[in-house]
Amino acid sequence: MADLILVLNAGSSSIKFRAFDAGPPEPELVLHGQVEGLSIGGKVSAATFSAKDAGGALIGERRWEPDAALGHQEATDHIGDFLRSHRADHRLVAVGHRVVHGGVQFTGAVRVTPTVIAALDRLTPLAPLHQPHNLAPIRTLVEARPDLPQVACFDTAFHRVQPEVAQAYALPDSITRLGVRRYGFHGLSYEYIASALPAYPELGAARAILVAHLGNGSSLCALENGKSVASTMGFTAVDGLPMGTRCGNLDPGVVLFLMDHLKMDARAIERLIYKESGLLGVSGISSDMRTLLDSDDARARFAVDLFVYRIGRELGSLAAATGGADALVFTAGIGEHSALIRERVCRAARWLGVELEPAANAAGGPRISTARSKVSAWVMPTNEELMIARHTRAVVRAAA
Amino acid sequence: MADLILVLNAGSSSIKFRAFDAGPPEPELVLHGQVEGLSIGGKVSAATFSAKDAGGALIGERRWEPDAALGHQEATDHIGDFLRSHRADHRLVAVGHRVVHGGVQFTGAVRVTPTVIAALDRLTPLAPLHQPHNLAPIRTLVEARPDLPQVACFDTAFHRVQPEVAQAYALPDSITRLGVRRYGFHGLSYEYIASALPAYPELGAARAILVAHLGNGSSLCALENGKSVASTMGFTAVDGLPMGTRCGNLDPGVVLFLMDHLKMDARAIERLIYKESGLLGVSGISSDMRTLLDSDDARARFAVDLFVYRIGRELGSLAAATGGADALVFTAGIGEHSALIRERVCRAARWLGVELEPAANAAGGPRISTARSKVSAWVMPTNEELMIARHTRAVVRAAA
Repeated sequence: MADLILVLNAGSSSIKFRAFDAGPPEPELVLHGQVEGLSIGGKVSAATFSAKDAGGALIGERRWEPDAALGHQEATDHIGDFLRSHRADHRLVAVGHRVVHGGVQFTGAVRVTPTVIAALDRLTPLAPLHQPHNLAPIRTLVEARPDLPQVACFDTAFHRVQPEVAQAYALPDSITRLGVRRYGFHGLSYEYIASALPAYPELGAARAILVAHLGNGSSLCALENGKSVASTMGFTAVDGLPMGTRCGNLDPGVVLFLMDHLKMDARAIERLIYKESGLLGVSGISSDMRTLLDSDDARARFAVDLFVYRIGRELGSLAAATGGADALVFTAGIGEHSALIRERVCRAARWLGVELEPAANAAGGPRISTARSKVSAWVMPTNEELMIARHTRAVVRAAA
Repeated sequence: MADLILVLNAGSSSIKFRAFDAGPPEPELVLHGQVEGLSIGGKVSAATFSAKDAGGALIGERRWEPDAALGHQEATDHIGDFLRSHRADHRLVAVGHRVVHGGVQFTGAVRVTPTVIAALDRLTPLAPLHQPHNLAPIRTLVEARPDLPQVACFDTAFHRVQPEVAQAYALPDSITRLGVRRYGFHGLSYEYIASALPAYPELGAARAILVAHLGNGSSLCALENGKSVASTMGFTAVDGLPMGTRCGNLDPGVVLFLMDHLKMDARAIERLIYKESGLLGVSGISSDMRTLLDSDDARARFAVDLFVYRIGRELGSLAAATGGADALVFTAGIGEHSALIRERVCRAARWLGVELEPAANAAGGPRISTARSKVSAWVMPTNEELMIARHTRAVVRAAA
């Protein structure tokens, strides 16, 4: 009879799940999968479910007709049903949730209570596109399984120890008090990387580490002695680097121009900067880095150039936050898998003291810098779900 | 009979002017002054005029009753009248204008023609708060003195040689094509500093120079071999560093939040980010650095901390654009006069190789770094009006 922790990551049209055996010193992946094509806000689509075991073998699959109009509640129920039927020998001891926004209040993972749910609800204006979806399965499970411990793990919490100057915008207190500050996101990824560093003895003396989480969403974080001191994302996850479809850093005056000159409203601007910009917008071709790297279209090349250039600029900005860097770590989809992007970023960071070892980079690391490189460079896989499983187990055990 | 060049800098409620003797190898300041308190857009105020000679002695003064409701035209006329009456022995050979926006089209100073005025008019959506005021005296003089050569000098032109990646936002081509790019501003100041560098033999070998124009408006520019390669201001002059009343860098998602959550319209947001933010907004006390440095209020201290921190971060970002820095130059009001801010910025840039010489800094430079400092640091007075006078003379002579 294994004790399982279920990790849920609920987005606007999907729920991803992973189940971990809570017994071993490190939670161990048992199975994972997702429900996709949820019908949200009147949009009706054909939902699909699939699940695989830890080795990647398919262990479950289902497809619904569009008129089933599966929502978050039904998807959460289905995941629970699957877990019960597939692993009759287990005991579900807790569910951990990825929640995008913990505001200033939540500086770590927290056991879900009615008070916590109310507090997280109040943060919805800070992340209207994500927070409600993250909270949906929490509510479903509170109803269906009131005794099952649930733990909320935040993308923002890891950054709350940053110096005040790193978190502030130069706005009047009346606006700042409403929660308008730089939250930084991808915190669970950076926290996982910080936790993985001790496994690399050569990094033992490293004080300042710049982490590049480059995926469909991309950001950078400066770690000083394992703590976040600065990051590129800001009040929202649209700020900082250009991403697949997000613009990254943008003069607020551009938004005024879009309002005045193009008569765009908030929703149209939101669609533009979240869905139609970044690699997709600049290239006019794709949000997928692989597609762009394979293309010989000049706009595709320029999109990649801009992505690399902005990373280079922001690495300088983060190095300023730590007073220079000792190491550079690549993680997430592009960071873990694109040797070419790593090579180009390392070239942009050469002035900081990064000297790439091409063969090691082509082989995927872990160390991809030369032995004499002043700043060492690394590839490390991230694992946000494992971080959530760890937090969830720790919170539940602390309460026991 | 001296040949004079008149330099006009027309803002929303004032016109500043300087007259230069065009004869000597370097245009020589003859007199300067301003008309302030112009009545614009229905706002009626009491205008004042004052003029001083090159030595600073008062040579003219006037005050109007509010019901005179002086506009740009009357102010321009009055400056012309004053010049004629005060310097009967001169010949006005040209007028040079500071124009905030030259778009992508104007990469240098240009002789004003009807076609140029029409092109500059079309740029008004890119700088609605400044461009119309800059153009007002040009129109007045075209009417009153059709034969008098006028030259438009742009705050943006110097930056147009930046690499494309430095000028681009990660937005779709349909938006970029409307002129939404990083223009950078303070170009006449940076161009002047670039022109002054050869006077410092120790900077002869310097390839990469970071210039900090810190005044009521503040920005940074990275020069490589005297050319702009990156700057902190963007599409508008609100982006980049926090300033007296401008917020600097801001997540575009904050603007959406202000629209959605506070129901603010474009004008209210514009007022907030241009007039009520920056040092004033954060401190709640003043936009004036001297006042904040003299205050022992915690909010005043935090505003200064944030200003210095953001400069430090952006210096790192600009150093990335040039692959490291050889020198750091301070200019403009705060840069030229606040030894304390210079000291704190140099401390933030210590990791780049800046080592301050405190006595030289207290004395105001010009060199304020130690002899062994890897990156030398300097104080250099800027002179945008002289830059305009030079351009104006050059354009007029080239046409003659």
